[in-house]
Amino acid sequence: MNYTKCWLEYPRICDETGKTLTAACLLTGTVAWRAVEELRLGLEGLYGLTLETTAEQTADITLDCDPRMHPEGYNIRVYQGRCTIVSGGERGALYGAFALLRQLQMEQCAWEELTWEGKGRPANPMRVLNHWDDLDGSIERGYAGQSFFFRDNEVLVNDRTVAYARLAASVGVNCVVLNNVNVRGAANQLISRRYYEPLREIQKILASYGITMYLCVNFAAPMELGGLDSADPCDDRVLQWWKDKASEVWGSLPGLGGFMVKADSEGQPGPSAYGRTHADGANLLGEAVAPYGGKVIWRCFVYNCQQDWRDTKTDRAKAGYDFFAPLDGKFRDNVVLQIKNGPMDFQVREPVSPLFGGLKHTNMMLEVQVAQEYTGQQRHVCYLIPWFRQVLNQDMHCCEGPSTVADLVSGRSYGNTCCGMAAVANTGDDPNWTGHDLAAANLYGFGRLAYDTTLTGEEIAKEWLRLTFGKTPLVEETLLHILMASWPVYESYTAPLGIGWMVNPNHHYGPNVDGYEYARWGTYHRADHKGLGVDRTSSGTGYCSQYTPELAAEYENLETCPDELALFFHHLDYTYRLKSGKTVLQHIYDTHFDGAEQAAAFLTLVEGLEPLLPQPVYQRLHERFRHQKEHSCEWRDVINTYFFRKSGIPDAQGRTIYP
Amino acid sequence: MNYTKCWLEYPRICDETGKTLTAACLLTGTVAWRAVEELRLGLEGLYGLTLETTAEQTADITLDCDPRMHPEGYNIRVYQGRCTIVSGGERGALYGAFALLRQLQMEQCAWEELTWEGKGRPANPMRVLNHWDDLDGSIERGYAGQSFFFRDNEVLVNDRTVAYARLAASVGVNCVVLNNVNVRGAANQLISRRYYEPLREIQKILASYGITMYLCVNFAAPMELGGLDSADPCDDRVLQWWKDKASEVWGSLPGLGGFMVKADSEGQPGPSAYGRTHADGANLLGEAVAPYGGKVIWRCFVYNCQQDWRDTKTDRAKAGYDFFAPLDGKFRDNVVLQIKNGPMDFQVREPVSPLFGGLKHTNMMLEVQVAQEYTGQQRHVCYLIPWFRQVLNQDMHCCEGPSTVADLVSGRSYGNTCCGMAAVANTGDDPNWTGHDLAAANLYGFGRLAYDTTLTGEEIAKEWLRLTFGKTPLVEETLLHILMASWPVYESYTAPLGIGWMVNPNHHYGPNVDGYEYARWGTYHRADHKGLGVDRTSSGTGYCSQYTPELAAEYENLETCPDELALFFHHLDYTYRLKSGKTVLQHIYDTHFDGAEQAAAFLTLVEGLEPLLPQPVYQRLHERFRHQKEHSCEWRDVINTYFFRKSGIPDAQGRTIYP
Repeated sequence: MNYTKCWLEYPRICDETGKTLTAACLLTGTVAWRAVEELRLGLEGLYGLTLETTAEQTADITLDCDPRMHPEGYNIRVYQGRCTIVSGGERGALYGAFALLRQLQMEQCAWEELTWEGKGRPANPMRVLNHWDDLDGSIERGYAGQSFFFRDNEVLVNDRTVAYARLAASVGVNCVVLNNVNVRGAANQLISRRYYEPLREIQKILASYGITMYLCVNFAAPMELGGLDSADPCDDRVLQWWKDKASEVWGSLPGLGGFMVKADSEGQPGPSAYGRTHADGANLLGEAVAPYGGKVIWRCFVYNCQQDWRDTKTDRAKAGYDFFAPLDGKFRDNVVLQIKNGPMDFQVREPVSPLFGGLKHTNMMLEVQVAQEYTGQQRHVCYLIPWFRQVLNQDMHCCEGPSTVADLVSGRSYGNTCCGMAAVANTGDDPNWTGHDLAAANLYGFGRLAYDTTLTGEEIAKEWLRLTFGKTPLVEETLLHILMASWPVYESYTAPLGIGWMVNPNHHYGPNVDGYEYARWGTYHRADHKGLGVDRTSSGTGYCSQYTPELAAEYENLETCPDELALFFHHLDYTYRLKSGKTVLQHIYDTHFDGAEQAAAFLTLVEGLEPLLPQPVYQRLHERFRHQKEHSCEWRDVINTYFFRKSGIPDAQGRTIYP
Repeated sequence: MNYTKCWLEYPRICDETGKTLTAACLLTGTVAWRAVEELRLGLEGLYGLTLETTAEQTADITLDCDPRMHPEGYNIRVYQGRCTIVSGGERGALYGAFALLRQLQMEQCAWEELTWEGKGRPANPMRVLNHWDDLDGSIERGYAGQSFFFRDNEVLVNDRTVAYARLAASVGVNCVVLNNVNVRGAANQLISRRYYEPLREIQKILASYGITMYLCVNFAAPMELGGLDSADPCDDRVLQWWKDKASEVWGSLPGLGGFMVKADSEGQPGPSAYGRTHADGANLLGEAVAPYGGKVIWRCFVYNCQQDWRDTKTDRAKAGYDFFAPLDGKFRDNVVLQIKNGPMDFQVREPVSPLFGGLKHTNMMLEVQVAQEYTGQQRHVCYLIPWFRQVLNQDMHCCEGPSTVADLVSGRSYGNTCCGMAAVANTGDDPNWTGHDLAAANLYGFGRLAYDTTLTGEEIAKEWLRLTFGKTPLVEETLLHILMASWPVYESYTAPLGIGWMVNPNHHYGPNVDGYEYARWGTYHRADHKGLGVDRTSSGTGYCSQYTPELAAEYENLETCPDELALFFHHLDYTYRLKSGKTVLQHIYDTHFDGAEQAAAFLTLVEGLEPLLPQPVYQRLHERFRHQKEHSCEWRDVINTYFFRKSGIPDAQGRTIYP
């Protein structure tokens, strides 16, 4: 086995070898069986205990079912070595088992000593991992090796598939989309006889951990795969083709969750070619998969990627709302729109997408990216959970009653059930799964947060650290500090004040202030010798007005617009004074000097952990933090020099800015 | 046959069908036979004449040999239908045959009417085409399709090989390097039994047209191919390996010209890994190939490609001289250094490399690039022969007697014989060979200029136009105007005043002012709010002092430094007044507005030729000129906006610069 178990290592807390516990499971099914199995694994690892199953009522651990409860919820009671996990269904039992093992590790107590009452109930119905894995084995925006699902156009099924399913289930993920949203080449054939058999194998493994499998499909599949001359959603032949295809697919893969589609986006085909709307397109598939209980996940990442940089009125940020808000209420019940957290594309800082406020009669899913495409690509540390938590907390002021993003996507606001949270995954076949060892905190954290949106980033980080590194105070304190500081630090030495996009084109790594400035992607900072930023107020692109009035006014008005989004919403002079009291330019200089300094401090801190960490872990961390230190200087210097050259204004503190 | 014959179409001048001419060839060998064959083809095409060979002394056309003449030279005498071509050898006879056919087309007269005495004698001993073709069929910096030498790791030998050899020989090319200087993967095995057989086939075809074949090899071949643990040029085992390899190679490919090497450059291996010099490296191979009359072509394109943009003292322009000038006199006689025309890399404008002045006891070859990597990639028209002619005319003031670049590389200055001119080829398997139909003028022109460096760009353009398009005055005049204007026009809307590099990284197409500014490639413009340019005087990087005193002083002094190189040698304020009387900034604005206007005018001019050109030719030209018009506006606007944003100084004429 050339890979780790991440937070499922179950390292020994205290040795109770020789003792045997009994477990009685009153639920039946493979998922319930996995729950018991996990308890067996966990108790053996943590204590050396042996767990035997029994049919007796007097077992040490009892897994029971209460059909009035949520099928994914659980209640746990532990006292003096006796434990009951009551759940609404098998998934709840599995989550309860993981919760119990987590609690034991958090408390670091002997089995007999744990006294605890715990409860779980999922905030979000759907908790999805999106894998952008291609069939050749590459991963689009993958920073942790190759795919462990595909290689050389074949599907991989092996012990790593099981290990992956455990990791996902242990944090409450209940849906996995196996392949890249950009469906090209052989990936078209995933919904053909060529692949059903190995897909069924994967599906079986995932299902045994309570995970529903989804597949990305190409909107033009009727042409690519079916040989039709059209994919027009209003063409009866096309509908019939999809119906036949769905019948074939569910015949071979019963229990499949459904299809995910990226349509009319960045070159992917879609309904617009036929003058049809996204609702036409999504409902076409929705109708075809409905007889099998299938769902359609439809991405809202749609914009004009042939924009002219000279055009200052067109605004990519507006595209999602412009395309989808007018279609509110037109989508079938089994269609869910997947909306990126921000209106642009996973930048280190963006406002929340106004679409969350704009859709009232449509199923919505929040899409975040734990793959660190724009946030250091798993070579820089960037713990994203506090950021996701901010997004969830954002009040959209769009309805009576609860109206935060968390309320909207969980279904609390409007009573939806086909909704939730999705994350673009950060995994690959690297031995540690995520390239940067600390990036696993994002994978862990996404699942935990999606299941329980009241958890804070810090609470989740503490859990993950304890589970991953055991109880070693200096390690836990140091890494907690680094994790919690990491996102602000990364923001500070990269693109300032919400402006985004100052990266090298294509691969998106490293500083390049003008990299996207004269490009066709709608991604501009408009820096000149006097200032920078995009005017998105009513005197500019008008983007602000896509928000509900409270938010629109907040962003429109410089007095109330938060500093960290100042340049996202406003074009400001370098000498403009922010609420912090600093000028825009001095803010840029200060944050870049500070950020690089903090990145250097991370390295020093990590070096202090050398004796406390396993050698391979330390070496991987050390290599990455060394790189981050150096690369943050490159960021600092490129950004500072760029703005010094442009403005001619020196640093007030006289630090080195290369001319 | 899905490709054209370019300038060898031999379209009918006047119809003399039915008549027969006789030819007597007093030279023997396949090249002489090709000469007669070409005359047969040409006379049939131009007149419908039949050419019969005869042994009689009274033939209409006699090819004779005068051993006192240069083996590649010829004297032609034609009068009243009788012609003698006297040459120093078979190659001379072949070049004479092509010259005769060219003259007939230039004069557009009947066979009987031509009265002409013509002479040819090659200026350069070696006239080389470098193909950067990879074995998978791709071409590095290829803009005209795939390779016609390689595909899927196999060597291609077919009618196109013959057609290519005819084109090359018709303009006097006598050496062809078949494969990419970056030798990777399967290309390592070109010098192994796997490939000798098909290579021999190609070699035979080339040789029949008087062309010597060369192969690029990997300096680390003893390791890659031979399994040694070193490629150290001073290791006897390595020398022995190369000797054995040479024996094997020439055993299989007798007559091979030799090896070409790109060493210690852009990631290619080389002698520096062992603390050895380029002389050690080149002489190693020189010794190994000497017994077979082989040569080693060693590239001087060596520089530090891991430079820090913050370092303003290191200067990539200095690298070639720094590496090679100290080694002057240390290279074997059968080694020739191939030196790019400028010190950087085929930019639209550069000074001549100071290495041409620095080497006095070393064989030199001038390397130019007809592949338009930085000059429009065969989508923009850019006729480069006037530029190459300027390079050849540059006096390096490095010795008593003739000391222009033409003198130096032809051997006139120091009496070398292993020297000449090389061009990176612009061909591919596109039907018209060069993508842009007008790019064929560069291929044609390189050969003509290398054979006769006294020809002007305009003379060569006129020849090529007549041969390619026949005698159609409007076509000839229009395209001559476009060709002759094309290089200045391309320069005018791209990077200004010799500064270069304002292109998108990697593919090098389209404007990106900061694309290489913060990169590791040593390619900077240093633009800030006050000015731009690189100070390469003695107060800057000191590059100027690599030239001989006359040139050093000319460039060092702003009064004498030519405007077109002003920013290559000096950092100037935007408000600095050039010799033209314009400020630097206004020069940038003016040239960019003018250049785009002229590119638009090209399109209009070409549209006027629609009735006069074959439809496929017109359509190809029209598509490219339409693109050039649009893309030159993109260049204009990006460059103008960039400098307007940076300087804050508006255009004096108030034209549109996007803010």
